[in-house]
Amino acid sequence: MKSAILSVGTEILMGQIVNTNATYLSQELNNIGIDVMYHHTVGDNPKRLHETLDIIFHDCDLVITTGGLGPTQDDLTKETIAEYMKDALVLDEESLENLKNSFSNSKRKMTSNNLKQAYLPSRSVIFANPHGTAPGFALENEGKIVICLPGPPREMKEMYQNFAKPFLESKANQKILYKIIKTYGIGESQLETDLLDLIDGQVDPTLATYAKEGGSYLRVASKRDTYEEADMAIEDIMVKVRERIGNHIYSEENEDLQYVVANLLMKNNVTVSSVESITGGLFAKTLTDIPGISSVFNEGIVTYQEEAKIRELGVKQETLDKYSAVSTQIAEEMVEGLYQRTGSDVCISCTGVAGPGSDDRGNPVGLVYIGLKYNGEVKIHEMRMRDAGRVYNRNRVMLKMMHMIYEVVK
Amino acid sequence: MKSAILSVGTEILMGQIVNTNATYLSQELNNIGIDVMYHHTVGDNPKRLHETLDIIFHDCDLVITTGGLGPTQDDLTKETIAEYMKDALVLDEESLENLKNSFSNSKRKMTSNNLKQAYLPSRSVIFANPHGTAPGFALENEGKIVICLPGPPREMKEMYQNFAKPFLESKANQKILYKIIKTYGIGESQLETDLLDLIDGQVDPTLATYAKEGGSYLRVASKRDTYEEADMAIEDIMVKVRERIGNHIYSEENEDLQYVVANLLMKNNVTVSSVESITGGLFAKTLTDIPGISSVFNEGIVTYQEEAKIRELGVKQETLDKYSAVSTQIAEEMVEGLYQRTGSDVCISCTGVAGPGSDDRGNPVGLVYIGLKYNGEVKIHEMRMRDAGRVYNRNRVMLKMMHMIYEVVK
Repeated sequence: MKSAILSVGTEILMGQIVNTNATYLSQELNNIGIDVMYHHTVGDNPKRLHETLDIIFHDCDLVITTGGLGPTQDDLTKETIAEYMKDALVLDEESLENLKNSFSNSKRKMTSNNLKQAYLPSRSVIFANPHGTAPGFALENEGKIVICLPGPPREMKEMYQNFAKPFLESKANQKILYKIIKTYGIGESQLETDLLDLIDGQVDPTLATYAKEGGSYLRVASKRDTYEEADMAIEDIMVKVRERIGNHIYSEENEDLQYVVANLLMKNNVTVSSVESITGGLFAKTLTDIPGISSVFNEGIVTYQEEAKIRELGVKQETLDKYSAVSTQIAEEMVEGLYQRTGSDVCISCTGVAGPGSDDRGNPVGLVYIGLKYNGEVKIHEMRMRDAGRVYNRNRVMLKMMHMIYEVVK
Repeated sequence: MKSAILSVGTEILMGQIVNTNATYLSQELNNIGIDVMYHHTVGDNPKRLHETLDIIFHDCDLVITTGGLGPTQDDLTKETIAEYMKDALVLDEESLENLKNSFSNSKRKMTSNNLKQAYLPSRSVIFANPHGTAPGFALENEGKIVICLPGPPREMKEMYQNFAKPFLESKANQKILYKIIKTYGIGESQLETDLLDLIDGQVDPTLATYAKEGGSYLRVASKRDTYEEADMAIEDIMVKVRERIGNHIYSEENEDLQYVVANLLMKNNVTVSSVESITGGLFAKTLTDIPGISSVFNEGIVTYQEEAKIRELGVKQETLDKYSAVSTQIAEEMVEGLYQRTGSDVCISCTGVAGPGSDDRGNPVGLVYIGLKYNGEVKIHEMRMRDAGRVYNRNRVMLKMMHMIYEVVK
């Protein structure tokens, strides 16, 4: 099946919001084997909507729209689509009931313009919206499908997962399953080389690699008559994948590295503390993005200045003078000081040059030392990164810290 | 002038990258008075490109393309556009020279497919690309303009600023100036109400408000015969704007709050330290995103656990027992302890419930206390936020911390 994503909203055309809905839906559609041929964004203008639908349906069977369903909009999206699909809007009693409940539950007055939201195409399959007021729907005509979802990402995602995805899967004769495998420490081209015969030689399952900041992902998908067959086909090929690149895999369930690390720490009740220089709190911030982490995250320290390193960690002035703050020796003194202070099972330190300029001791941008103490043993890792800007540089260091912890607690 | 943004790239259609180029260009074009009517994304497919150009030029005068100029692409973007604009590609000697230099400077071998990049439409105005290998260009035909920019955001932005923007400005009869005013602590609807007569009553300058996480922005734009006149017109209306909402403005130069705060601290050599509980390092991370901040940022501590608060800051067990960790009293003991330890001019603390659940003392998600010590005086601020998810909640606390510092050091 070929598809297009059509976003409706002047905020996107004004550059006030980034169109992450299109990215999300593209990933999801590709994952269930639907090709995405176009993204389009238009304002709520019937003529432009109509023209855009025309070019989409030249070569696509499906369009998913986001936005333009709310009460404050002119709401021409829904009317234009109903007309295009040779249908008309009618009042849906159940949607009206939901709408009224939504207002009374939040003790808000329902103004009359809200009523519009309960009018939906007569032949449509209606998708309820528990987190908002605008329902979505799927509408078919002459082999073409339009699915309309609300604009707010949280409402859109939930409605896609609960209604649109099952609806699309029910249209397919075959069942698609897929896995996203996340790796660290192997570039996309190396991953491709290591798996080349599997990638080129396979009709089903299919394998595709892609590069992400801090790692490469592998998507393994199978389309079979039943989910069981697809699952077995994926597992068969995964045996080979694990043989070749298993040491680089940290998740076969599409999880982020920080999520995997945080859950390992929590599950095994391994306590952790960090002292950051170059990352300035990014490591602690990222780890504490995960709910429940307070049970194992003892303490984070950001020692951006030499005085703080000396005062808080007992780093020695003579070591700073001799080797500079960006050195193996300082990374080690930092992590030892942190361990003295917190006694955490895992202690991690980092020091480096984030840029834009080299430091006052002439250490180049991208030079970083990470210290890790675990089970009485200290490991120091040196990074020499190509300078890709301060934000990117810091992020790469944070990911390396996460992965070093992953390696010892996995 | 009416315009469209046309992105070329299968990575976007696969959902592998978010189309931030379209957002950037939309902001920039709107800022210089060019309306953006469409965003389109297509693969590198001549037929679909051609059809998309057709619907764009129904009602637009300008299209800016991004991507599809590289050597590994089939490079049909450039050929399709040249043909569409009734032109042909020819070898540009200067671009060839730049290309060769780029390869020899980085000691890479120039493979023959790279040569393509030096072929450009014969009538085009060529835009050099110092950070990449693909030059961009502007091409006109029968009153229609196509501007082609490379896909990597860094190359695209620099080329837009250096070449495309001046090119577009030279096409306008009148000069446009604009200011982005950033505010904190006032909602968009209140901002609109406070400035309603100025927004509705004005033909030029025009005022527009928009809501952003952590504040509302105001855009003031003027289109006049000369930049001097536009500047004067903006300054005239800014006098009124400042009278009404001046206490909420933290930047008239489109700067982020953390940038403004970091620069005030650096300029006045005011040292700062932080101790974070709910934000888990986000404050320190955000402040240290700004280069040069190490001169004033003494230390950051993340005390996620009660033991760390006691050990590091001398917070009292009885205070924790009596009032719980999320309380005015603990925010105060944290900031006092931080001051004892660091002696920084500004000391700031926060404690609160980020969610998803309330804490073990029954404090609700969104309850936060921030402590600020400056000039011997401690101020405690209580927040009771509507729960909008862990990430958003933490971000709002960080912004409030930044703004509290802004208020004392501005």
